[in-house]
Amino acid sequence: MDDYLASCQRACEGEIRRLCQPTEHGSNSLFDLIMDYPLRGGKALRPALSMAACLGLGGQLAAILPTAATLELYHNAFLIHDDIEDDSVLRRGRPTLHVDHGIPIAVNVGDAMMSLSLQPLLDNVERVGLGPALRILRAVAHMTRRTVEGQAIELEWVRSNTWELVDADYLAMVELKTSWYSFITPLQVGAIAANARPEQLGPLESLGRHLGAAFQITDDLLNLRADPEDYGKEIGGDLWEGKRTLMLLHALRTAPPAERRRGTRILAHPRPNAGTAVRDVRLLDELVAQGELSPAGRTRLLSSMDGSGSGETKTLDDIRWLYELIQRAGSLEHARKVADQQADEAGAALAGLNWLPSSRHRDMLRDLVDYVHERTR
Amino acid sequence: MDDYLASCQRACEGEIRRLCQPTEHGSNSLFDLIMDYPLRGGKALRPALSMAACLGLGGQLAAILPTAATLELYHNAFLIHDDIEDDSVLRRGRPTLHVDHGIPIAVNVGDAMMSLSLQPLLDNVERVGLGPALRILRAVAHMTRRTVEGQAIELEWVRSNTWELVDADYLAMVELKTSWYSFITPLQVGAIAANARPEQLGPLESLGRHLGAAFQITDDLLNLRADPEDYGKEIGGDLWEGKRTLMLLHALRTAPPAERRRGTRILAHPRPNAGTAVRDVRLLDELVAQGELSPAGRTRLLSSMDGSGSGETKTLDDIRWLYELIQRAGSLEHARKVADQQADEAGAALAGLNWLPSSRHRDMLRDLVDYVHERTR
Repeated sequence: MDDYLASCQRACEGEIRRLCQPTEHGSNSLFDLIMDYPLRGGKALRPALSMAACLGLGGQLAAILPTAATLELYHNAFLIHDDIEDDSVLRRGRPTLHVDHGIPIAVNVGDAMMSLSLQPLLDNVERVGLGPALRILRAVAHMTRRTVEGQAIELEWVRSNTWELVDADYLAMVELKTSWYSFITPLQVGAIAANARPEQLGPLESLGRHLGAAFQITDDLLNLRADPEDYGKEIGGDLWEGKRTLMLLHALRTAPPAERRRGTRILAHPRPNAGTAVRDVRLLDELVAQGELSPAGRTRLLSSMDGSGSGETKTLDDIRWLYELIQRAGSLEHARKVADQQADEAGAALAGLNWLPSSRHRDMLRDLVDYVHERTR
Repeated sequence: MDDYLASCQRACEGEIRRLCQPTEHGSNSLFDLIMDYPLRGGKALRPALSMAACLGLGGQLAAILPTAATLELYHNAFLIHDDIEDDSVLRRGRPTLHVDHGIPIAVNVGDAMMSLSLQPLLDNVERVGLGPALRILRAVAHMTRRTVEGQAIELEWVRSNTWELVDADYLAMVELKTSWYSFITPLQVGAIAANARPEQLGPLESLGRHLGAAFQITDDLLNLRADPEDYGKEIGGDLWEGKRTLMLLHALRTAPPAERRRGTRILAHPRPNAGTAVRDVRLLDELVAQGELSPAGRTRLLSSMDGSGSGETKTLDDIRWLYELIQRAGSLEHARKVADQQADEAGAALAGLNWLPSSRHRDMLRDLVDYVHERTR
């Protein structure tokens, strides 16, 4: 699987370079920034899904590569904007784009990447024919709509500080926000590029939905415990953000009323805004330790920095308390169990694809299912 | 012209509402935010250009309305992100979206609007037929590419603090960054929806290019002098941002070397970013005065806050000095002259469209040219 992903990643990287070349009008600096995230060596999971579906169904690499690269470009644009929205400091082990270059440039670069994603999909008309090209465009339009709907649901939960949510609510949101653009559509466009029949898209949707949910849950589990060297993201960042994960929802749902109240009260507080504040908080502590700043001055600076005026933001103690709540409630085990169930469903969906012949492409999909199972251990 | 624009605006607003309706999956809160800027009553210039070109060539309103609304949606998404990038506080006389709801939500809402813009263009296949639908999609892909290239050029100028630019540099950048998406493409897609012949698109490109340049220059002139009640934008915001306008470039180009050096030095400083930094710098000074913070600690905090290390930002005196430089150099008159020339070129391009019969649609285009002339007075 690793070799397969690595070769997809190389092919895709070359293709993204080709798509994002400045023409005579452009200057290099924006195009260099566009290539920043794609060149950090992500897993290239989405391109690999597209390629596996296309090649596994007897299609040609050339028929799917530009579409696969376009989806990867789109994904990287989302990552840049997500990192701004979540004020994340690390991405793939390095500072996020807005930490390196500021929010204005990072917003702009993400927009540019999204804007460049239409042309390669139109070029599909010459590449795979009019019918498949239009089907791919429709699949992408459907995908973006579902993603927006998923964001809308999550945003609504955050705005209304809603925490009374069951697993099914979480799974429905993740399907919309993540599974469509990261799993279902990559598989489907790969199949379409290989001239799949319309009735073959439904089973791929099912495979992508469950694989997507399983991946997201295990990603969230890793966020709680992983080593930053391995994972490239900020540890516990989800708790600072107050992200609705399966674990946190389970812990709050099963906690005694008093703890639930304390938890939702903590989660209603903003995090101290990270790019600046986490770094600044460390600096403030350092200055206090060195006698350059008084404790009273530190408090006033802190409350000015988070913009809320009240100074009430989540603290490291809050995050520790939430993490202990999750552990006490057995929420990690619960989440692992749900992820395993989803991976099982994905495995069953894959086993049902009797029109997808045995090949290393099919094997890679099987390996992905097994990989998620391993991640739950 | 005002009546024409108003009726286009009403039609377009209704269509945007239809395109951005939440489905059973969505929740309302994101979709309410999507409608915020479109409902603030912009001029609806882009939809009016599309409609005038389509109806003027004998096309039907139903053939162009969804495409016109999509371009307007796209434009509003750009405005939201531009307002973040420029840290603008006012848009159409009200607080910008990120001021009202925070940067994370504003980034998200803009992305959602861009993401929703593909489906209506695909629905054109049923509406105007496959050929015109594909031509419209290609026009939009070309437009987004040009816009990105324009942004790339502007970004490069900002990063390298380049100010030695002549009118032609400015006009080339504005054509890419603004004229394509605001003027040329709206006119062209309108014509395509009315089954225009390919050779008719070139003259429309010329009309859009010059009209776009004239509008942008007069917009920039208004930014320097207009009443916020009339204009809805922050006064002098362009100077604070250090935006390369025709006036500022002319003033620096014609200024004596010492003034040019002073000007570019001022312009290399960031603006105090509207909400936070100015307040923070004051607070740091206060803490030092009260003995709560050492001067060395202040320096370290400052360099952490603005990222640049120097803590030097533009001041109100700097902005006044720049404005006086522009006045002394006769740059306002120069810019008015160039805008008039561009409007003349647009008028000539319009006069040359002998295949566009006389109608109130053609009259509206003529009125727009005259309107820009009036704006230069």
